[in-house]
Amino acid sequence: MSTFEKLSINTATIKKASLAEALDLSVAAGLQHIGLWRDKVAEVGLDTAVEMVRASGLSVSSLCRGGFLTAADGPGQAAALADNKAAILEAKALGTTEIIMVVGGLPDFSVSPGAVDGGGTAVAAAGGKDIVLARQRVADRLAELVPFALEHGVRLVLEPLHPMYAADRAVLSTLGQALDLAAPHPAEAVGVVVDTFHVWWDPSLREQIARAGAEGRIASYQVCDFNLPIASDALLSRGFMGDGVIDFATIGSWVAEAGYNGVVEVEIFNEGIWAQPFAEVVDTVKARYAELVAPHLG
Amino acid sequence: MSTFEKLSINTATIKKASLAEALDLSVAAGLQHIGLWRDKVAEVGLDTAVEMVRASGLSVSSLCRGGFLTAADGPGQAAALADNKAAILEAKALGTTEIIMVVGGLPDFSVSPGAVDGGGTAVAAAGGKDIVLARQRVADRLAELVPFALEHGVRLVLEPLHPMYAADRAVLSTLGQALDLAAPHPAEAVGVVVDTFHVWWDPSLREQIARAGAEGRIASYQVCDFNLPIASDALLSRGFMGDGVIDFATIGSWVAEAGYNGVVEVEIFNEGIWAQPFAEVVDTVKARYAELVAPHLG
Repeated sequence: MSTFEKLSINTATIKKASLAEALDLSVAAGLQHIGLWRDKVAEVGLDTAVEMVRASGLSVSSLCRGGFLTAADGPGQAAALADNKAAILEAKALGTTEIIMVVGGLPDFSVSPGAVDGGGTAVAAAGGKDIVLARQRVADRLAELVPFALEHGVRLVLEPLHPMYAADRAVLSTLGQALDLAAPHPAEAVGVVVDTFHVWWDPSLREQIARAGAEGRIASYQVCDFNLPIASDALLSRGFMGDGVIDFATIGSWVAEAGYNGVVEVEIFNEGIWAQPFAEVVDTVKARYAELVAPHLG
Repeated sequence: MSTFEKLSINTATIKKASLAEALDLSVAAGLQHIGLWRDKVAEVGLDTAVEMVRASGLSVSSLCRGGFLTAADGPGQAAALADNKAAILEAKALGTTEIIMVVGGLPDFSVSPGAVDGGGTAVAAAGGKDIVLARQRVADRLAELVPFALEHGVRLVLEPLHPMYAADRAVLSTLGQALDLAAPHPAEAVGVVVDTFHVWWDPSLREQIARAGAEGRIASYQVCDFNLPIASDALLSRGFMGDGVIDFATIGSWVAEAGYNGVVEVEIFNEGIWAQPFAEVVDTVKARYAELVAPHLG
């Protein structure tokens, strides 16, 4: 088994690469998977993207992203459902069963659904600051999407985001909360992602990773570091594994204990990394993965 | 009953005011309490500070701060115990029963115990990135401090900090975790503070506030807003109530439901606010408190 058999580089890590470049880089690096953002797919159109992926021989480990389910108004809710159904169909066409869901922030503060990370803009909308209600709306919209997801064999993968993004990106803040939200639905319809950047600080992390594994809901393990000081745009504080504060050995061992042995995605938003030559970024990801992540996955 | 009977302004909100100025401003504003940082006390010396507070007629609602208990090495641990015992004696002399505890970050990344917020510098130290071990050391040091605190009638008040500070300031990240840490000790020895900035995002907040109230551990309710975008120095993203994302009505009602009817402190770290004339800051705090906080405290 190759050290890199499970490694998948998400296109957000090499944000300025085209889809063609990202596919070529992954193949040249000897990888078998790639994580895609919808903006990269949209740049060439879905049909062309599907053809390019097929020609590359890579499998798509996940598609990012659906979500943004917190709208308080009818038109906003209808638009969110339509966009998520489109995302589900895109995922299916691209051959991945996993659509990553960033559930959205408080209606007054949430970035727009189409905003690409690193370029999001806040959109004012009715709905106030009531996070309890916003969370309830996520549950309601999720229930509406589950039948469509099941019908198409695509799993809605809830991503708890670091609490510093609770107002503008995701009112879903912990893995435990994600599992509570998933609980009414079958594991093939609603999963969770364990992203080290977002969850490393959680005092109940070991327990919740074990629970996620026992429930068969771990759809993806995503790794990157949490850099200090926090970047002036807090969204871009993600770093190469080893550059920040996260103990990958411990978290990786918990993920392995929970029975997860699937793909590991590396998704980094970082201006400095985006400015580097793509191939250098891929080399660094591989080296850090081999040193800090792979040895602990069992 | 005056609208402002429970209001206390923490000296960190008017960081550039001297202790004398802070006391005068609070008296002139018709307040009955003040929250003190140890640096303000140190500027004049403890004996003088005690005399000044007595002359002002104000009661000290809390002293900030003790803590920084995560050192992995013997000398670091001994220094932390000595500093916390000094803080307990200072609190007692100043007539407050509540010493606020910021428990410290990962040893490799924690700011130094003496660092004043807004001016902290990271101190490299042995101990690595293991947050599970760092949290255990907090529990161990706390157990060592409890007898001394009880002897002097001062309560160690655990402050969960927002998870974005888990590496550099406090591995204590949620109110539930604080209550678990407090559980082995009597409520008169170990309490918790509910600071809206740090906990507003927590999906288990209502439940944990209720639990804190039922256990008699709520030592302070602290209010300020969480501003977006996050300030370039993330520590300084606190704002006047109403300027950020927090729903004070809901959280205030939970605190009232939990039976807390004590002092409400306003503690804001914000460069813009620190640059304003002190009296203007106090006026704004009072206005926002009267509008957004006081009506929900029952």
